[in-house]
Amino acid sequence: MLDTVLATLAANQPAALDRLKDWLTIPSISTDPKYAPDCAKAAEWAAVQLRECGLAASVMPTGTKTAPGHPMVLASTAGDPGYRGPHVLFYGHYDVQPVDPLDLWESDPFVPVVRDARPGQPGGKRIVARGAVDDKGQVLTFIEALRAWKQVSGKAAGGVKLTVMLEGEEESGSVNLEPFVMANKAALAAADFCLISDTGMLGRGKPAITYGVRGLAYTEIVLHGANRDLHSGQWGGRSPNPITELTRVLAQLHDKKRRITIPGFYAKVLPLSKKERDNWKALKFNANKALKEIGFGPAADVGEAGFTALEREWGRPTAEINGIIGGYTGKGAKTVIPAHASAKVSFRLVANQDPAKITKAFFKWCKDRTPPGCRWEFIDHHGGFGVTCPIDSPHLAAAQRAIKRAAGKHPALIKTGGSIPVAGMLKDKLGIDTLFMGFGLDDDRVHSPNEKFELECFELGQRCHAVMIHELSTQK
Amino acid sequence: MLDTVLATLAANQPAALDRLKDWLTIPSISTDPKYAPDCAKAAEWAAVQLRECGLAASVMPTGTKTAPGHPMVLASTAGDPGYRGPHVLFYGHYDVQPVDPLDLWESDPFVPVVRDARPGQPGGKRIVARGAVDDKGQVLTFIEALRAWKQVSGKAAGGVKLTVMLEGEEESGSVNLEPFVMANKAALAAADFCLISDTGMLGRGKPAITYGVRGLAYTEIVLHGANRDLHSGQWGGRSPNPITELTRVLAQLHDKKRRITIPGFYAKVLPLSKKERDNWKALKFNANKALKEIGFGPAADVGEAGFTALEREWGRPTAEINGIIGGYTGKGAKTVIPAHASAKVSFRLVANQDPAKITKAFFKWCKDRTPPGCRWEFIDHHGGFGVTCPIDSPHLAAAQRAIKRAAGKHPALIKTGGSIPVAGMLKDKLGIDTLFMGFGLDDDRVHSPNEKFELECFELGQRCHAVMIHELSTQK
Repeated sequence: MLDTVLATLAANQPAALDRLKDWLTIPSISTDPKYAPDCAKAAEWAAVQLRECGLAASVMPTGTKTAPGHPMVLASTAGDPGYRGPHVLFYGHYDVQPVDPLDLWESDPFVPVVRDARPGQPGGKRIVARGAVDDKGQVLTFIEALRAWKQVSGKAAGGVKLTVMLEGEEESGSVNLEPFVMANKAALAAADFCLISDTGMLGRGKPAITYGVRGLAYTEIVLHGANRDLHSGQWGGRSPNPITELTRVLAQLHDKKRRITIPGFYAKVLPLSKKERDNWKALKFNANKALKEIGFGPAADVGEAGFTALEREWGRPTAEINGIIGGYTGKGAKTVIPAHASAKVSFRLVANQDPAKITKAFFKWCKDRTPPGCRWEFIDHHGGFGVTCPIDSPHLAAAQRAIKRAAGKHPALIKTGGSIPVAGMLKDKLGIDTLFMGFGLDDDRVHSPNEKFELECFELGQRCHAVMIHELSTQK
Repeated sequence: MLDTVLATLAANQPAALDRLKDWLTIPSISTDPKYAPDCAKAAEWAAVQLRECGLAASVMPTGTKTAPGHPMVLASTAGDPGYRGPHVLFYGHYDVQPVDPLDLWESDPFVPVVRDARPGQPGGKRIVARGAVDDKGQVLTFIEALRAWKQVSGKAAGGVKLTVMLEGEEESGSVNLEPFVMANKAALAAADFCLISDTGMLGRGKPAITYGVRGLAYTEIVLHGANRDLHSGQWGGRSPNPITELTRVLAQLHDKKRRITIPGFYAKVLPLSKKERDNWKALKFNANKALKEIGFGPAADVGEAGFTALEREWGRPTAEINGIIGGYTGKGAKTVIPAHASAKVSFRLVANQDPAKITKAFFKWCKDRTPPGCRWEFIDHHGGFGVTCPIDSPHLAAAQRAIKRAAGKHPALIKTGGSIPVAGMLKDKLGIDTLFMGFGLDDDRVHSPNEKFELECFELGQRCHAVMIHELSTQK
């Protein structure tokens, strides 16, 4: 039956692309409250698809009456009576990142464009839009596999016992995810493992399964000075300037070896094993080539001393300033000393680092450096634990077989430097492992202008999921 | 005749206030090109007033066809045939600072409100609007004095030989001022000294003449990293983050003694004389009280080691970061590493420091600290020299007598930490000294939300200028 499913999938491609375009036109930016109606619309859109695939699907509210969250899509099918395989929880997210800086987009972020690579760019036809690969396009690879199985077998998910949970706040801190999971713990804890498509391959034609993700602690710090903006002629050199003082504090975040200076930051970081380092070395990742693609020379290969680029991305924690603002930032000159300046500072964490404790330690570190006369305002935008799936998991083995058959080659086993908070939380609250079958590419411009998903990757993802359903449904 | 002039001035107050309100409704923000028509309107408004005072006034274009500037108001009167006093050049500016942060204004910045002080605030009735004191209100103190003299004597400026030059780019770098002055050098170089009302008094009821201003060098630096925004999960710890790198560079701008670290920065700075330091000490300026007014405790009295607050403001150069921006600065979280980050950095200079050389030295200092893989973009927003008027100038003596008579007390002789680029340029190009008769107060919120000018100061300024005209016209 699998061959018929794969043939159906191939025949479905033009329609599948139209469906993706349709979803991508909805600007479901979760971090900005004004897009809340669009988030709801994107959730409803997904529920309709899942119902067409034979699942029972609901769009469920999250948050509280006074602080409503974006809705969760929850769908399920009980599976064939004779199904012997695991109960799968598929997680994805329908929300997207903000689109700024808008002037760097070649086309409207919410008017999807299908086009060839620009001359000199690698890769084939791609769809360009915010959310193309992160994560609407990748979620749709799974839904399209479900659709083909339903068309061919007449059964939802080809008889596999499945729960689908699509979140609307992955890009904005997932504050309502854990409460939702706890409120629906009975249904969700029955799952044996979680499957997520929100990661990348090792490169074009190099499929991969990601068995570990970094955690995240995202903070915002505001340094307050005078009770008003000041004239720098009058007050320059006479009182603390919150911008100057903030840069003096933030510049201390890394030492000369680019290690993070917060006391205790590395306390729970496990050293990389020789085996893991050797495995990664065997992947022959070319750090300079990757840098070149984003416009950097080899001199830009900087990070924590003593580790390769891949080790720094996959296995070491980092601190980044994601945003900074203060004073006059318009055109021309304004001689102001502002009342405050602020920065968004985030930490990527590796297993065993607790995001709440790291955030607390960072705020204390700031407090210990409070500039004279100033005061801090601290905002915790939360995050999640990092996780690693055991290398001998049977579900991981099934996924490896599925990709081998769908792609014609063995997948690499890799980690990612990104954070998918749900994974750590599911391990913590439901005790289940997560594995990541992702089909993005390094140059997909995730979170950046002109985000894209290559059509070859889009189709490969659908094929892999279709075979995965076969692998699960034929388990004895 | 002076008594009649002063009585007329007093009777004119309600109408004078209406005229000020009228001018303040024009949003002549020079730094933002979209307000160019408003700048032109504010210039025309002033020309009409000057013509009513009997002067020949023109609104003259500046800049080039491809890069037009805001117009200059140039007005003059030849003076009485028997006039023996100096030819006065009065300079002021009709442009204003931007109004952000708009949410901190209690009323619309361009809908002037006349109101009492809030409970607990010092001072009396005030007019609140952008430009109230800087500089429309202060320019109008002079024009209202001209108006009263015209009404009483029938003569423009009471017979004093006068040129009035009102600029529209003082708040945005004065790029077209020097070319304009050079193009009109014949007319302007005939002046014996320049009179400016764009400074403050020592306090309520403490009139002052400012005999020195600091210079300014205003720059903008942009640090470019990757050729696109990056995902901090993928690239965090693997490549330079322009925000982090920028803070690491800017944090080096001051050493532990808060001295500026740019090589040669202090080379042309003259040491403060004991006499000057003693004079200033005698003013009994209360630094902690001033800090308290802007919400700071005494711990905020920071600046270059070894100098008092007043010495730091009036006599020492400073470096301030006036603006900084990079990455995501909206609500919530975005895990981005931006392609670039930038800062506006300005320097207040003291006599003999050349703004062009300081800017060049700063850019070199940045270049010497270029973070790995990154590149700088440097923008020079220009500035001007600092100047000091000789303490034995006869014009300064006339101004002292005028204020003594108008205010009933001797003016303090002070300096200001602000910069009025025209003064340095007039000394350099026309060889004339400038003296500053200003009527602002320290808490006028210059450049800040809720800028105000107290009506008592507004009237005092008019009286002082009226007596100054008398002092000049009676010189033998």
